[in-house]
Formats: sequence, structure tokens, C-alpha cells
Amino acid sequence: MSQDQHNQEYLDHLRHSAAHLLAAAVMDLWPDTKRTIGPAIENGFYFDFEFSQPISEANFPAIEAIMHQLVKKWQNFERHDLSATEAKNEYPGNQFKHELIEEFSEGGKTKISFYKSGDYQDLCKGGHIENPSKELKHFKLLSVAGAYWRGSEKNPMLTRIYATAFPSAEELQAYLDQQAEVKKRDHRKIGKELELFFIDEKVGKGLVMWLPKGTIIRDQIENLVKAKEAAAGYQRVVTPHIAKEELYVTSGHLPYYQDSMYPSMKMDDGTYYLKAMNCPHHHRMFQYRPRSYRELPLRFAEYGTCYRNELSGTLAGLLRVRALAMNDAHIYCRKDQVKDEFKAVLELTMEYFKIFGLKDYWFRLSKWDPAHTEKYIDQPENWKYSEQVLREVLEEMKVPFVEADDEAAFYGPKVDVQFKSVIGREETMSTIQLDFATKERFGLNYIDSEGKENAEVFVIHRAPLSTQERFMAFLIEHYAGAFPVWLSPVQVLILPIADRHAQYAGKVAEELGAEGVRVEIDDRSERLPAKIRDAQLQKVPYMLVVGDKEIENHTVAVRNRDEKEQAVLSVNQFRERVLKQIQTRQG
Amino acid sequence: MSQDQHNQEYLDHLRHSAAHLLAAAVMDLWPDTKRTIGPAIENGFYFDFEFSQPISEANFPAIEAIMHQLVKKWQNFERHDLSATEAKNEYPGNQFKHELIEEFSEGGKTKISFYKSGDYQDLCKGGHIENPSKELKHFKLLSVAGAYWRGSEKNPMLTRIYATAFPSAEELQAYLDQQAEVKKRDHRKIGKELELFFIDEKVGKGLVMWLPKGTIIRDQIENLVKAKEAAAGYQRVVTPHIAKEELYVTSGHLPYYQDSMYPSMKMDDGTYYLKAMNCPHHHRMFQYRPRSYRELPLRFAEYGTCYRNELSGTLAGLLRVRALAMNDAHIYCRKDQVKDEFKAVLELTMEYFKIFGLKDYWFRLSKWDPAHTEKYIDQPENWKYSEQVLREVLEEMKVPFVEADDEAAFYGPKVDVQFKSVIGREETMSTIQLDFATKERFGLNYIDSEGKENAEVFVIHRAPLSTQERFMAFLIEHYAGAFPVWLSPVQVLILPIADRHAQYAGKVAEELGAEGVRVEIDDRSERLPAKIRDAQLQKVPYMLVVGDKEIENHTVAVRNRDEKEQAVLSVNQFRERVLKQIQTRQG
Repeated sequence: MSQDQHNQEYLDHLRHSAAHLLAAAVMDLWPDTKRTIGPAIENGFYFDFEFSQPISEANFPAIEAIMHQLVKKWQNFERHDLSATEAKNEYPGNQFKHELIEEFSEGGKTKISFYKSGDYQDLCKGGHIENPSKELKHFKLLSVAGAYWRGSEKNPMLTRIYATAFPSAEELQAYLDQQAEVKKRDHRKIGKELELFFIDEKVGKGLVMWLPKGTIIRDQIENLVKAKEAAAGYQRVVTPHIAKEELYVTSGHLPYYQDSMYPSMKMDDGTYYLKAMNCPHHHRMFQYRPRSYRELPLRFAEYGTCYRNELSGTLAGLLRVRALAMNDAHIYCRKDQVKDEFKAVLELTMEYFKIFGLKDYWFRLSKWDPAHTEKYIDQPENWKYSEQVLREVLEEMKVPFVEADDEAAFYGPKVDVQFKSVIGREETMSTIQLDFATKERFGLNYIDSEGKENAEVFVIHRAPLSTQERFMAFLIEHYAGAFPVWLSPVQVLILPIADRHAQYAGKVAEELGAEGVRVEIDDRSERLPAKIRDAQLQKVPYMLVVGDKEIENHTVAVRNRDEKEQAVLSVNQFRERVLKQIQTRQG
Repeated sequence: MSQDQHNQEYLDHLRHSAAHLLAAAVMDLWPDTKRTIGPAIENGFYFDFEFSQPISEANFPAIEAIMHQLVKKWQNFERHDLSATEAKNEYPGNQFKHELIEEFSEGGKTKISFYKSGDYQDLCKGGHIENPSKELKHFKLLSVAGAYWRGSEKNPMLTRIYATAFPSAEELQAYLDQQAEVKKRDHRKIGKELELFFIDEKVGKGLVMWLPKGTIIRDQIENLVKAKEAAAGYQRVVTPHIAKEELYVTSGHLPYYQDSMYPSMKMDDGTYYLKAMNCPHHHRMFQYRPRSYRELPLRFAEYGTCYRNELSGTLAGLLRVRALAMNDAHIYCRKDQVKDEFKAVLELTMEYFKIFGLKDYWFRLSKWDPAHTEKYIDQPENWKYSEQVLREVLEEMKVPFVEADDEAAFYGPKVDVQFKSVIGREETMSTIQLDFATKERFGLNYIDSEGKENAEVFVIHRAPLSTQERFMAFLIEHYAGAFPVWLSPVQVLILPIADRHAQYAGKVAEELGAEGVRVEIDDRSERLPAKIRDAQLQKVPYMLVVGDKEIENHTVAVRNRDEKEQAVLSVNQFRERVLKQIQTRQG
């Protein structure tokens, strides 16, 4: 058993013990409550009750006080076994416990274990800490929710109290702080506050409506991508969002991926589908005409939209949607070009991450397993060659990476980029996949330097910036909505102190706007502090306060969203500063 | 009868007479031919024959020679009537004519008219010129095609000869020149030669695959639009390509427009459709939250993709497609803002046209008809007000316009921009529509300055640059593929004379590329004249020839695609020139 697993077991015991304590306090306060079950869960525990009167988070301090009081006398957990009848007598009128007792005793045939600590005992199969009075001090009730008895909507609705417990005050506080951060950074909450996007029931679930401010950020990301990819020799293409059945039969999406695809549409000339992925369209573009070895590597890039028929109940914000705009590209290259191309993709990926200030990432090389050849395309030479090439790339780049056996795609090895988000969640941000199956499926080839057809076309699938939807969710969380200047929908907000300063505000706005700065004026007849507060809530990077003095000296009083201090700069000085931040995508 | 109609009638008579002459010549050359019918059509005429041996365009000179010879003796067209039996005897073994004679004579009950000129006569209902020998001199056989007897694929395939005739040699030559121009400028032909786009049967009909070079032009147009619309106060948004049934029920697209829509897709939470139009999505965006009078006019812009379920047989190049990316926007304004907004849209439209060098256009104001109120939304005050406002705008702008009664949309008056294309075809390029029906359908409103709800939200639908597909077809034709510098996929092609000049070519390319110029090097081991010819075929605006002299003086020998002369410029001078052309979008 590893140290981690050991710790997790101790935490589970601690939290399940805390669940006993919670129930004891509740029974103390409201003796007519019907208690049911209280398991440990990830990051805490809960207990389900049927109260005779509604309770709320306002009751938490009272409950917690009783818990702290009771636990002083809890020296251990002692087991004793009762018959079904004895057990039921412990819970007069509590049909939930009676149901459990019936079940656990197999209709009264066997005895049932109880655990007792202090004056409180409960039907329980065990798993506790040794000395609650010493170990169980750092707990916190978190929230109240409704929950059906045994999870079925046919059963009565119970009241669930969520809570957590940790071995130390520091660990508890760290967890609570992190949870507050998660809540504060929730992309749905910030997306609404900053008017970045919304999901409209009438338009449909899982379909993102990008509001003007969200569209600006989206466009900035696309502009960055277009510039970097053009410099890296990619060619942009645009392909339709639908395709004929035949294409997906060739690619194999039909039938293997059909469950994830939207329903088909029968037209007068065949059956059509919304795009499952962008690759088949790009492959057909490669096949538009014979390709010469001189053209390779050929790199087709597109923010292509793919569609997934997710169940409506599973859709959530930007993280699980039904239409995704992928930062997609496909690179068609010769075998001897695989290494350079793979390396260039990794370098581009890291260049992006640097721009967004992302540092907590590492790589995972997913390989095939020669013992499970049935799962992989049968080209042992190519597997060996390409895995070695990918390993060399990672080693030469001196980046942290792990290797994972039997984790490759069917069609070739891949490198995933793993991320630790600002709130500690691990996720796969990007994936770079090598593919030596498509050349056969589609019959890709090129004319080599001797005029002969060569079918060894290797395809690299890559999406360094994930999808617009997922990456935006990540960025919102990463910046907690305070986007860097170059991404901010409004970069500068001018706050005239009084109406007589409006004209000057307009002049400054025009000077900045002419250089492409996204500038607005708050000319509402609100008082200055209110305007500043609103601008801060909107996370506008710069507020320029203008009044009599500023007009006289052709200056602006600059307030940064993070600072309270104002710095007076000439309009020119400020313009230079903000333009530099925008052009360098820094600050 | 107008002069135009009179002329058209004369042309029809001339061409039908020419059809007689064509048949006479054919019968002279191949007496065993079975002739059928020969009507005048738009711009010419045809005649359908069953030949005993295949003929081709190679036979045209011989046929035309006989026609010129025969017509000398054709002084008039003389009518005489024959019985069915007599008539059939004129066409021994010609089952086609016999079938017609049966029909026209109602089974032998009535006589049938014949017309004779010179020694040739044919069954005919009339409509000829008076004196063929004088009037019928300027004709031309154009092409051969297969055509089923009476248009049905169940009948035998006949040979159709297309031809035309005009009153004068000048008119005939003008028509032939124009046809050559049409052929030369055909957007499908040029689109293929320049590798701009293709339609792939496997992806689907009517679905445009934009190749890298076409995507560059597309992106340049979008960049122009984004810059101009941002300056004009539009806000860009992005909306999904699909929507739930409910949305289109609200908008009225269902059921009124259903025949043009793609088949529905049933999901677990309802029925979805590919986007019929962008407006409903934008209306929902307007309704995202309560709107203040201070926010109006609110202008949502998007190159939004709409889908039309056209029959596969009707699809053609970029002009009739199943997915269209519209240069779309919707302006939400108060009644008192309609005039300014409409004017601003017209001004923006004309600004675009100026950039593309388009001059041959005029406006059409389409109004309702108070006598046909059932066709129009019942808001007489708004009709009166808005038609007057639109008229004032057109008058103030001093642009040519016509008014058309009973041509408005259901929901309000509109202004269409009519174009005469470079090959003389008239088409509607842009449309700007006022809409006072949507506010009711969707329940749009805003909060006025007194805090009250006001439901008088006027919507302007506008698409100055049509759709990407149609506008690209228009531009290809307009420029005959020789796009101005700012739109050209490759702006500069460097031609090193020999291998030893390749390094310098690379240096020049880097200098220009660093400034964003789209530059390529032709380093194939071809001779210079071949490289120049290829570049001209690709319509590259500038070729830079570099050899020993250019390296010595840090210059380039500049060739324009239209000129044979070379001008030697310093790299700096050339860079300045090309950058200015790109930035100003001129030249």
C-alpha cells in the first residue's frame, strides 16, 4: 500500500467518524430527526436526515458547537452486535433504518454491527479513527442539499448535510481557501458577470452563444494562432461543417464513432452528418490533386468546428458542449520529416503556453503495447521508429515527461500535455498524435523525387490550444476573469469626473482608439467611486480618470485594476505603455 | 408594345428563320438526317436532329458555308397548309415529325401549316422575318450537345446544334466577344486554375472546400469587414450553426421556410435544425438581458453560416450552394434612429464597393402595396414612416434609385443594390431590410429614459457583401482572377535566375515577409521565361527577377503581371510601394 493510499484510508476513517459526530449533534439538538446514512466521500463526507422541521446553513454554528462539545468524551469506537429486533428498537419509527436492518440482517437471520463512541451509537460496518477526542478537531459543515433516499426519485426527499474534516487546522483551512477560489474562479459565474458568453435554452443546450466581449477574446486567441501558425509554415483552410456519410465510412468514424455523432440528415443525394472531426475534410484537401515531395510537409490549419451528441443532462458551461471549435491542424509529412515536425509542434505549443503565462505542465508519451497487437495498427516497424523519434524529441527538448505503455491511439503514438490548473485540477490541455493508419484508409500518397508514387504519408494531428470552449474556460479560471491587457475586451475605461470633462474624455478615447486600443468612456452621471468600483468588477485593466487638472496638462490619472494608487501620465506616455503591452502580449 | 419587346420579337423571328436555314443546310449535306424542331431561345436558337452518323463542331464551317449559299435564294417565307397524310409524306421514316403531325392535326382532323423559303419547307406555326436573303446574314453555330426528344430521358437522344443570329455583324461580334469573356472569367474555371476552392463529391455537393489560396482571399475580405464594422460601431458575435426547433417556430421559419431547411435532427432534449438564417440567434442575443435606451442602436455582426436544402441537381460552383457564410449583421434601434442607421449602412456599402472598384450599381426601394394588406404586416403608420425615411436617405445621398411597389418583404420595406456585372449580367448584390415584425414575434423591447418598457424596437437586416461564396464568385469574375495586390494569395514571387542567386532571393523574401507581404520563391530549375509564364498564369501581381546585377546593387528587377517591361528598384523602394498598395487596398 502506498503512502498516498494509506493517507486516503486514514482520511476516509476520519471523515466517516466525523459523520457519526455530526449525527450525534443533530440528534442532540432535534431528537425526533430520522437519521439514515453518512459515508466519507472525496474531499469530505455527508449525512442524510429526515428532519421534522427545515434546517439551513444558519443552523451550522449551533451544530458545530455541539460537535466540538460532544467529541471531548469520544475516546474510541466500540463495536457490538445486535439482533435485527434489537437494532430496530434503537430507531423507533425510522423506516429508513428499519429498511437497512432488514437488508443487512438478511431478513433477521444475522446480527448487525453497531459502533459506539461517547453516548452515541449507530448501525455501522466500521472504518473509524482510534481516538476521536484527539484526532477529530478540524471539521467544517459546508452546505445543505436535497437528496432522495437511496438516490431514487421514487423515494422521499431527505436533507443532506455536506461537510469535511482534516487532520490539521492548516489542511482544513487550505482546503476551504481552495474551495473559495474554485467558486470565485468558476468560468460560468465569471462568464456571466463579464458578459462573455451564455447558453440559451431556446437555441439549444451545449451550444455556446459568444457575446461581443467573449468574441473579442476568442478573436484575439485566433489572431495569435493565425500569426504563429503562418510563421510556422501552416496554410489556413476552411471546410464545411457537414459531410456525406461516405466520407465517414472511409475515415472509420462510421460506424465506430456513430454514438457520439449527431443524427443523420437525408438529402436528395445521400445522407449527411454534422462534422465528427476535421481530419477527414483535411485529408480530402490533401487529395485535391497529386502532391509532390517538394510540397511536404503540408500543414493545413483551421479552427474547425466538431459536433458531439452528448446527453443533454451531462452538458456543463464551456467544459462539456455539443459544438467545439478546435485549434486544429493536420501535418502531412514524409517519414524522415516526422521528427522535425513533431518537435516544431511541441515548440509552438510551449510558445503558446509562455504567452499565457502557463508553467505547471509536463508531457506524457503514450505508447502501444506489442503484447496487445489487436488494439493497434499492425506496423511494428513504424511503432518502433516513431516511438523512438518522439522520445528523442522530448529528450532533446529537455522537458519533463513520463512514458505510458498501452495508452497510444489505434493509429500511432501520441504526446499529451498535462496541466495542473491554478486550482489544482489536473487536465490534458493539448494532444499531438502521430498517425500511420490514415494513409491506408484514404490512400494518401505523394510523388517522390524520382517521379514514383510513395504511400508513406505520415499524419500529425495536433491541437495545442484545445478547443475555443475548453481553453476559454481554462483561461477564465486561470486569470479569474482579469485577462491580460491584450485579451481584455475593454482595455481602457475613461472616467470623466464631471460632465464638463466629457469632451476631453472623448478626445483621449479617439487618440487611443485610432491606434487600435479598445477604449470606452463611462459617461454615466454616477459618482467617481461608483464608476471605479464597476470598472474593477468588470476587471478593466486601466481606468483613466480625467478632470480639470488632466485637461490643463493633457494628462490622464491612470489606475490599474489591481492597485489603489493613481499615477499621472501624459496621454502619449500612457499610449506607449498600453500599446507595448498589447503588441508584446505581456502585462 | 415597347421598343424593347418589339426588338425581342424581331430577334426571335430572325433566329427562328435561321433555324430553318440551319435545317436546310443540314438536309442538304446529310439527306438521311431526321430533323425535329428548331425554336428561338434567349440569345439564339437551336435545332434537334437525329443524324445517321455523328457530327461535331468540326462540321460547323461546312454547314455555315451551305447556309450562306442557300439563303441568297430565300426571298420570303410562304405558308401553305397540308393534310396530315400529305405532311407525313414530307418526312418519310421520321417518327418524330410524324408524332408531331398526329398531335397538331388532332389525329388527322385538321390541316397543318408549312412554311417554305427557297427550296426548303418545314412544318411550322410561323414567326419569321420577311426577307431572309437581305436580313439573315449574321449567324454563327456555337456548340453541339445531346438532348432527349421532348426532354424526356425515356425518349431517344438527339443531337442539338446551338447557334445564334443577329441583325448586324457588329451585334453578332459583340455577343461572341462577350461569350468569350464569360467563358474566360468563369469562376469555376479560374477557381480551379488558381486553386482557390473545390467541391468534393465525397464531402458533399454544394459544400465549398476553401483551399489555402481561397482562404487567404476570404480572410482578407473578413479582415476588411471586421475593421470597417468595428469603426462603424458594430459588435462582433459568434453563434452556433444549429438551433432548436422552438427558435424557428418563434421566428416563423417553421413552418413557412421548412422546405428550404435541412432535415431535422432528433436529440435527447428536442429537435434541432441547421441554421436557416442568423437573425433568430442574434435576436436571442439582444434578449440576453434587459436593454437600456442608452445601448441602442445595438449592432451585432457575424459572418454567419446559413444552410439551404437545395436540390443537388441545381447546385453550381459558388453561385448555388448549400452552406453560405453571410456578411451578416442586425441593428436594433429606436424608431427615431432608423434614418441615421439606414444611411450609415448605405454609406458603408458604398465604401466597400469603392474599395473593390465597383461602379455600375443603383438602388431599388421596394415598398408595400396598401391595396394588398394581406401580404404585409398590418402597421400602416410604420410603413408610411419608414418608406418615407428610406426615400429621404436615398435622396439625400444623391444616389440613383428606382421605387418598386408591392415588392417589400412581409415585415418592412427594403433597399436592394442592383449590379451590372463586368459581363453584363444584372444581379442583386446586397440587401438592406427594415423589419418591424420581429419586435412582436420575439417580444423585443428596451427600457426608455423614464424606466418604462418600450416595444418599438426596429431591426435592420443587412448584408452589403452578400455571402462569401457569392461575393467570391463575383470578384473572380470581376477581376478575371487578377486580384488586386491586397487580395492576392501570393503578392510577390521572386525568380532567381540561377541557383547561385537563391540565397539573395531568400534574403529579399525574408525582408518582405517580415512586413507581412505574402511572398514566395520559385526555385525550381526551370528557365526564367517558363517561370514568368507560370507566374502570369497564376496572376501573381509582382515578379522580382534577381541575378548577379541585383545582388551587386541590392535591387530587384520588378515585373508587373500586366506589363512586359521590367523596372529595377532598390529592395527598399519596392517594399514601400507594395506595402502602400496593401495598406491602402489600392493597386
